[in-house]
Amino acid sequence: MLIVMQYDASDAQINHVMERVRAHGFRPEPVPGAQRTAICVLGNQGPVDASLFSSLPGVKDCIPVTKAYKLVSRETHPGDTVVTVNGVAIGGDRPLAIVAGPCAVESRDQLRRVAEALARRGVRLLRGGAYKPRTSPYVFQGLGEEALEMLAEVRREFRLGVVTEAIDAETFDRVEDVADVVQIGARNMQNFSLLRRAGASRKAILLKRGLAATIDELLMAAEYILAGGNHRVILCERGVRTFAAHTRNTLDLSAVPVVRKMSHLPMVVDPSHAAGTWEFVIPLSLAAKGVGAHGLLVEVHPEPEKALSDGAQSLTLERFDELLDRL
Amino acid sequence: MLIVMQYDASDAQINHVMERVRAHGFRPEPVPGAQRTAICVLGNQGPVDASLFSSLPGVKDCIPVTKAYKLVSRETHPGDTVVTVNGVAIGGDRPLAIVAGPCAVESRDQLRRVAEALARRGVRLLRGGAYKPRTSPYVFQGLGEEALEMLAEVRREFRLGVVTEAIDAETFDRVEDVADVVQIGARNMQNFSLLRRAGASRKAILLKRGLAATIDELLMAAEYILAGGNHRVILCERGVRTFAAHTRNTLDLSAVPVVRKMSHLPMVVDPSHAAGTWEFVIPLSLAAKGVGAHGLLVEVHPEPEKALSDGAQSLTLERFDELLDRL
Amino acid sequence: MLIVMQYDASDAQINHVMERVRAHGFRPEPVPGAQRTAICVLGNQGPVDASLFSSLPGVKDCIPVTKAYKLVSRETHPGDTVVTVNGVAIGGDRPLAIVAGPCAVESRDQLRRVAEALARRGVRLLRGGAYKPRTSPYVFQGLGEEALEMLAEVRREFRLGVVTEAIDAETFDRVEDVADVVQIGARNMQNFSLLRRAGASRKAILLKRGLAATIDELLMAAEYILAGGNHRVILCERGVRTFAAHTRNTLDLSAVPVVRKMSHLPMVVDPSHAAGTWEFVIPLSLAAKGVGAHGLLVEVHPEPEKALSDGAQSLTLERFDELLDRL
Amino acid sequence: MLIVMQYDASDAQINHVMERVRAHGFRPEPVPGAQRTAICVLGNQGPVDASLFSSLPGVKDCIPVTKAYKLVSRETHPGDTVVTVNGVAIGGDRPLAIVAGPCAVESRDQLRRVAEALARRGVRLLRGGAYKPRTSPYVFQGLGEEALEMLAEVRREFRLGVVTEAIDAETFDRVEDVADVVQIGARNMQNFSLLRRAGASRKAILLKRGLAATIDELLMAAEYILAGGNHRVILCERGVRTFAAHTRNTLDLSAVPVVRKMSHLPMVVDPSHAAGTWEFVIPLSLAAKGVGAHGLLVEVHPEPEKALSDGAQSLTLERFDELLDRL
Repeated sequence: MLIVMQYDASDAQINHVMERVRAHGFRPEPVPGAQRTAICVLGNQGPVDASLFSSLPGVKDCIPVTKAYKLVSRETHPGDTVVTVNGVAIGGDRPLAIVAGPCAVESRDQLRRVAEALARRGVRLLRGGAYKPRTSPYVFQGLGEEALEMLAEVRREFRLGVVTEAIDAETFDRVEDVADVVQIGARNMQNFSLLRRAGASRKAILLKRGLAATIDELLMAAEYILAGGNHRVILCERGVRTFAAHTRNTLDLSAVPVVRKMSHLPMVVDPSHAAGTWEFVIPLSLAAKGVGAHGLLVEVHPEPEKALSDGAQSLTLERFDELLDRL
Repeated sequence: MLIVMQYDASDAQINHVMERVRAHGFRPEPVPGAQRTAICVLGNQGPVDASLFSSLPGVKDCIPVTKAYKLVSRETHPGDTVVTVNGVAIGGDRPLAIVAGPCAVESRDQLRRVAEALARRGVRLLRGGAYKPRTSPYVFQGLGEEALEMLAEVRREFRLGVVTEAIDAETFDRVEDVADVVQIGARNMQNFSLLRRAGASRKAILLKRGLAATIDELLMAAEYILAGGNHRVILCERGVRTFAAHTRNTLDLSAVPVVRKMSHLPMVVDPSHAAGTWEFVIPLSLAAKGVGAHGLLVEVHPEPEKALSDGAQSLTLERFDELLDRL
Repeated sequence: MLIVMQYDASDAQINHVMERVRAHGFRPEPVPGAQRTAICVLGNQGPVDASLFSSLPGVKDCIPVTKAYKLVSRETHPGDTVVTVNGVAIGGDRPLAIVAGPCAVESRDQLRRVAEALARRGVRLLRGGAYKPRTSPYVFQGLGEEALEMLAEVRREFRLGVVTEAIDAETFDRVEDVADVVQIGARNMQNFSLLRRAGASRKAILLKRGLAATIDELLMAAEYILAGGNHRVILCERGVRTFAAHTRNTLDLSAVPVVRKMSHLPMVVDPSHAAGTWEFVIPLSLAAKGVGAHGLLVEVHPEPEKALSDGAQSLTLERFDELLDRL
Repeated sequence: MLIVMQYDASDAQINHVMERVRAHGFRPEPVPGAQRTAICVLGNQGPVDASLFSSLPGVKDCIPVTKAYKLVSRETHPGDTVVTVNGVAIGGDRPLAIVAGPCAVESRDQLRRVAEALARRGVRLLRGGAYKPRTSPYVFQGLGEEALEMLAEVRREFRLGVVTEAIDAETFDRVEDVADVVQIGARNMQNFSLLRRAGASRKAILLKRGLAATIDELLMAAEYILAGGNHRVILCERGVRTFAAHTRNTLDLSAVPVVRKMSHLPMVVDPSHAAGTWEFVIPLSLAAKGVGAHGLLVEVHPEPEKALSDGAQSLTLERFDELLDRL
């Protein structure tokens, strides 16, 4: 932390700030400049809360220096974390992993058709929602436990790893029994109770970046999970909310190299939710590969026109083949 | 819903879209224009999911017309909802309600000092967090049940109505016993499990707008609560996330008249979280009054310098007096 | 500037950075911490360009400390600047100034009706566009010189101060002859050629904040004008672009107290462009007054239904009376 | 345009709206629904201004249908536009074009070293700024005419096509003489005087997307140029401004396939300005290629440490080689 004093800060004000720094157990180091004094806060083990000092008289600005995350940081853990799921290694310099499937499990028939098609194409990770967080209380919310049973069934039959979402502590228990990877969705990225539950899980966690989350916040959310003892965390960029409305969300692909620099955790990309329409899923997938993503989470549906949710952004099997070809 | 066809859409494509509209139980009404055809979707009771049609061949755009909320809408419920808490009426044309107190309950002494000071000034609603959602797992997370006991104590002694936050289903039960108003924080605005729990509560709910939530999404979140049977909902604008970094969040005061036009629910403003520093709390409070807010949620702390969280944005008692004077 | 080194930065890297700091004429002051070293850059007279050092080996981050503006800063000029136009003092603790009129000058009749109505109500500053920057090349772009003649006419007849926009160097000359205040619009806030021209002008300048401009950028744009010798600058908040679409732009009222703290220049608010619809203009105007704005720029049109641009956001004369009453 | 009436709109209100539609020369087509009436506006040749109707009594919403651009639209011009500069074809399915060079021309020596290095690598398009729009009036603003002479010199000697920026009408004339492509920067994207000047130019134009510009606004800005008679326009995505601060701007790569769908114009990507640091330039370049960009605009500097502007985001020649290799 660097505390920048105002031009006209008095000696008494500077001394008071230094006293408060000491009172919190840190060591103040004044740096007198030509125009104003700054005070370095030293001796801290983690980040210092700016609000402790920013309202003191004579203080102009408090500038944080140390990042708040430890376990997820590449500085403390230089080597890449590789999370292996159903034989697919995700992370480091491993080849791009593919997770595909419908937005929501809608019926046994729908799920079996997708699962069988994926297995035939050599894809080993299936996504499909049993519990769907939906903006409106009046639309399809997922088949719940019934969907979990269907997922368990195709998991066995087609030897697929299953990625599916938990939306609260209650559903986490059920999802954990079936899933190989428990997904925490964008709207729950800062649901700290759910993150703590994920930290106590024996399953890998796919943590999606929130719609307005900074990279620091995403890494801090992951820190909750690692601090709980679960180190098998996969991060996911799925688009953020900006003024731009030509896609459903703005896919921030720069997040991938930034996270890879700052953290050892793997990061995948979900182009389907960002695009909001299947037409842009293939170019965005190729871009995600180019930028260094460790995997893709792609919506595939045998009959998008009849999908109960997000049909517009799902690839048909034919288009999914085109994607695999071009990758 | 208006489905806009491409310039060169064929008759077969137009017919296929109309067929799909009928298959979903709606009535298509083609409107041939000079340049292209549009198809109005009629006969729907609520909003139509754009993704049902937007991926059909020949479709250029699907434009929603009907809003998805019903119970919160002023169209279906023209009169203002007034929520009365501890004798304070919030909503309609009632005078500005004041809710004040510390960000977090930190000690019996701190809480009693604030509570006593509020009571002496005639303020009847106390805010104070027992469970604090925090970005980092390593910082103060609130005193939990201990804080709830202190809140219960000052509630009785000073006859204050208590507003405090629940962060998951488990803490909701405990908070509900003590609080007059259960707060759902910005990060949980789309925690649909928590919203459903709030819908089954016998207490009033303060629902804060999410950092990246549109007004439609805020109203849809409230719709979950009303649909559960709890109509005592107070909305709260507390700043949204934008590119602008001169305040912690950008206080979107236009949300107040927009919500008042679209909905019958009361809406209050939290200037403290938006400002991030006490210096701007008074002007933003006066602005909130000017724009028509039904109330203010203001952080007040007897010794902000020693606060365990968000001290920088708390008013001292002297500055709180200045605020009350100027209001 | 504070240069933060990486955990594992070598002594050679630290020395190289210090050498480069000296090469640019500054003085490096190393601050060794428990975890890493930071280097304070001292001896600079203005801000230091972060890009000079941020790509050096071993550097983690470069954190700017000094702000880049001087003439507009309250630190170098503590007293309020008051800009007086046609007898109306704008700035400091003067009463709220009102600037009103149509978006665009459309006809002699329209302009005279508004001007006469304003004069009758004691409003002494008239706004009205002769040159209109429009997103599309195919819509009404303003009456140009013809409009300037009409403005000159009503200015004389009704003794009104005229505020009108210049969109490039060529129109600036013409506008300057007629206007009491030359407006630089939001889209031109970083048109540095135009800012330099404004710096050489003998007329007061109304500088609107850009749609995605930070407060620092707004103040730096004003610095161009003051550096050119023209100190009569009025800043204007008119809404910024965010994800929120319930108003045309998100009016960032917190900009007013922030600018008033950082700068001595007056700041007014344009609620009409932000709202995009007349219904929210009155509440936003009252909010602007509450937050401490020095003035309002309000669109008023005798017959909004027939306006050639922005009719939806214009107040009728009856509603303008209501606004004046409530202020 | 679709005009949606309120639930309780009276027949008189509906009739009044239809009358106003006719008064503007359009044909109203009422579509009565179960809950409310909507009115389609037909007979328009381009987009209809929503503000003409949105303030009429009983109107709830005005929803635009037709896009405002014509000449840039793929609907009116289905084939790809290919702009050829110095023998390099940009657009359609041509190979990725590379434009490289320093942010600013700083000296004859610097420019010659880059130019010579590019020529040796077979790169045929050189970028380099003579006039630099800078946020602060106190920093390096470019060498101006002197730089143009140096550009002319290396253009001849190394047979490079030159891309350089014009910042106003005055500099456009000078730049046009030297450049093969005149760049209009992000801050000037809606400088309509400059766009009109570009429309009258005999040189190709590189139009950068503004920091807060929607795709519609970018295409409308290009429409100004095409409407002036200059059809050789290359669009450029260079990052937009969002809440995310981990890169200088958020590179919105989805803009590429969206523009390619909506328009026939070529679109290139500038990863350097978006990244703000050279470390992310290579991954973002590979992503741009993946997403279908027609070219890259990359900052290359022989000694980034000594650059007068934007050194941090420039590639050294060694790293530029790595980029070429990986592409």
